[in-house]
Amino acid sequence: MNRISIGKLAKELVQSYRSTERITNIEKRQFPSRSQVIKITEELRELLFPGYLGRTDLCWNNVEYFVGNKLDRLFTLLSEEIAKAFGSLSVGEAEEEFHSFLCSCRERACRETELFFSKLPKIREMLEDDVQAAYDGDPAAKSIEEIIFSYPCVLAISVYRMAHELFLQEIPLIPRMMTEYAHALTGIDIHPGARIGRSFFIDHGTGVVIGETCEIGDNVKIYQGVTLGALSFPKDERGKIIRGTKRHPTIESGVTIYAGATILGGNTVIGKNSVVGGNVWLTHSIPPNTKVIIEEPRLRIVENKSS
Amino acid sequence: MNRISIGKLAKELVQSYRSTERITNIEKRQFPSRSQVIKITEELRELLFPGYLGRTDLCWNNVEYFVGNKLDRLFTLLSEEIAKAFGSLSVGEAEEEFHSFLCSCRERACRETELFFSKLPKIREMLEDDVQAAYDGDPAAKSIEEIIFSYPCVLAISVYRMAHELFLQEIPLIPRMMTEYAHALTGIDIHPGARIGRSFFIDHGTGVVIGETCEIGDNVKIYQGVTLGALSFPKDERGKIIRGTKRHPTIESGVTIYAGATILGGNTVIGKNSVVGGNVWLTHSIPPNTKVIIEEPRLRIVENKSS
Amino acid sequence: MNRISIGKLAKELVQSYRSTERITNIEKRQFPSRSQVIKITEELRELLFPGYLGRTDLCWNNVEYFVGNKLDRLFTLLSEEIAKAFGSLSVGEAEEEFHSFLCSCRERACRETELFFSKLPKIREMLEDDVQAAYDGDPAAKSIEEIIFSYPCVLAISVYRMAHELFLQEIPLIPRMMTEYAHALTGIDIHPGARIGRSFFIDHGTGVVIGETCEIGDNVKIYQGVTLGALSFPKDERGKIIRGTKRHPTIESGVTIYAGATILGGNTVIGKNSVVGGNVWLTHSIPPNTKVIIEEPRLRIVENKSS
Repeated sequence: MNRISIGKLAKELVQSYRSTERITNIEKRQFPSRSQVIKITEELRELLFPGYLGRTDLCWNNVEYFVGNKLDRLFTLLSEEIAKAFGSLSVGEAEEEFHSFLCSCRERACRETELFFSKLPKIREMLEDDVQAAYDGDPAAKSIEEIIFSYPCVLAISVYRMAHELFLQEIPLIPRMMTEYAHALTGIDIHPGARIGRSFFIDHGTGVVIGETCEIGDNVKIYQGVTLGALSFPKDERGKIIRGTKRHPTIESGVTIYAGATILGGNTVIGKNSVVGGNVWLTHSIPPNTKVIIEEPRLRIVENKSS
Repeated sequence: MNRISIGKLAKELVQSYRSTERITNIEKRQFPSRSQVIKITEELRELLFPGYLGRTDLCWNNVEYFVGNKLDRLFTLLSEEIAKAFGSLSVGEAEEEFHSFLCSCRERACRETELFFSKLPKIREMLEDDVQAAYDGDPAAKSIEEIIFSYPCVLAISVYRMAHELFLQEIPLIPRMMTEYAHALTGIDIHPGARIGRSFFIDHGTGVVIGETCEIGDNVKIYQGVTLGALSFPKDERGKIIRGTKRHPTIESGVTIYAGATILGGNTVIGKNSVVGGNVWLTHSIPPNTKVIIEEPRLRIVENKSS
Repeated sequence: MNRISIGKLAKELVQSYRSTERITNIEKRQFPSRSQVIKITEELRELLFPGYLGRTDLCWNNVEYFVGNKLDRLFTLLSEEIAKAFGSLSVGEAEEEFHSFLCSCRERACRETELFFSKLPKIREMLEDDVQAAYDGDPAAKSIEEIIFSYPCVLAISVYRMAHELFLQEIPLIPRMMTEYAHALTGIDIHPGARIGRSFFIDHGTGVVIGETCEIGDNVKIYQGVTLGALSFPKDERGKIIRGTKRHPTIESGVTIYAGATILGGNTVIGKNSVVGGNVWLTHSIPPNTKVIIEEPRLRIVENKSS
């Protein structure tokens, strides 16, 4: 292929950037960088589990330097991405206004980053209970360390707990980038908007979906393939989906939900200490202290002719 | 352990390369490099979503240089991998023939790479509709950008749409390497041979399987855990599986398939605008404008004694 | 934000390292490095599939240098991580004892690494059969190479087979780090403790869970979303879960288990050559040569009003 041909293909592709402009971001807005957000998330996890992830030679004499230095660096990185996230909400200010808009984004980003950092100790408290819940809940767990190093739920929940705080601070785009990073690694899809109590354990995890408006109490335990989802979407008079209503279920404290169960709907409440059996499909509420299982589905057992 | 021991272990392992030679590739053939194919796929995605992935400072003055330069580089890289893929089909030519065989592979690879590049604008057109379908279909989506950055279906579908074109061009090995890269990141397993129409949306996605001979119309929406699979495999007279028949279902335009549904068989057709409910198990066709749901499975609700 | 503020946040976070110390590893123990274990696993896979993964220019003249060199390097790296894993079992020896404890860990680690390396040829023999089983079992497979390069089960099973040997050698932490690395990439969660026979094939794979005490015979084939799990956990008199009992099913040779089936319980045995249909939920044993399918669940088929 000669240069003329590459030139022609390049021109055609650039032309398509104009004609299919909804997925083109040229001279429009600057967004947070996904790869940068992932890097920040990984470094934050090192701060949450000191001595386990990242540097392993920490001692009480050096830890404050380590933490101070990392926080300082992460402050710069994260506040920059948050500033871009706020900046992306620009509604087309005139040029002189745009400059002061960006300044205000940067200032707000610094405040929000500081606020977020101040929550890390509280997040660690919750994670300590989550890790303990995994140990108490899984007979295959040999030690607390095995859980911190290997259990996908520790990755998914620690990233969710950080993303949720940023979601509450109304940072655009970044919280979802963070939870989708965890989703890709674990198969556990927790929307950053979900509200989840203490001592939360997800075993195995692949295929779990926890929707945006879920509310989950303390000491809840769920297994792989569980969906806490929406039943149907109300639409406005123009047939457009209405955003922002409670569409996902409430799971009260002490509930266990076994593998493959599906619980749908914003008005569905699973009462305290109830148990939802594997593969159960629920679109209505269940009182506290109840066990719901599928009627042993009738099976047909026949001789296997092909063998 | 001393050197003698390492030497002995190395000899034994090399010996096993001879005795279990079906999984040994020494002095046999050169294959495309999986890591190289993944790198190329990632860079192609930057061309599909300019300004979102990769460089974020594009403007209309520099974009053609950026695109021209990247296409030029990718042309070299991709045509090399495609040449190796064609070369791997060698059927043991004699040495002098083998040289001219490799030359013909390289020439064909250049032509196929150019053809593939010329399809990128068309692929972008389809992706624009896919992204819009995600926005219209998910009330949790806050913006088009959130979808491009975070939704696993955008990764899975954009990689599939490229891999499908290479599959149609009968490039060996590379299309499947591409879709399995997306499968690893998203849990969405789309075979590059599947045929999928416009405005396709997969929500959440983990556990979705779309088989090689599926045909999917426009405006189809599916949820996590949906399998579009094969019912059983016809075998030839020697008991070997017959490859290449239509084994997977046809999903007509406007169909929605909810989480966990399984639809099997090459003769199974889900008619236009029909809805398949969650967890439905279907091995036969459904007419258009139909809704299929499982009979609310009988549940046993009992007091939870353990609480 | 000024330095004072960062300093304050750092102090608070370090303070939380003391107050939530169950997830703090400062001046406690050294553990294997997860990222190092993943790197070693990837390089071991290059030795298992020579010429396919990693270097592609191997010939019979250079392969022994390649293998000897890699084994030598990996010996250093792996024995170091294994030594740390043994060292992490320290029960608080006094300082002089601790030094000799670490020495004994290092010696034992060398012996175990050597033993593990000597098993690689046997592991390759099993993998050759696994790859062949995938080719024989999937009509979409175009070649042996496509399977080695692209099939998630090859990654999951090859990592499992190595991790299982280390598990049998009672190396702490590392086996599970290895299988969770494969789980993250494939969605296939095989506990390193499971016992799996020859010619094992998992198609698609996302969502598969194979528990710690499973026993699986030869020529077993399973599909995506299959769970081989525990029914319930026996607890001791203090209400703590009892670890180490057989909690997961036995799958005899020649069994096929279709997508989404769930088989639970340590006493559940699926007899030789039986077939378990998609979505079947089983908590009791099935005799040999039997086919179990769900009674076609009653479906409600209605006109789709919304269309």
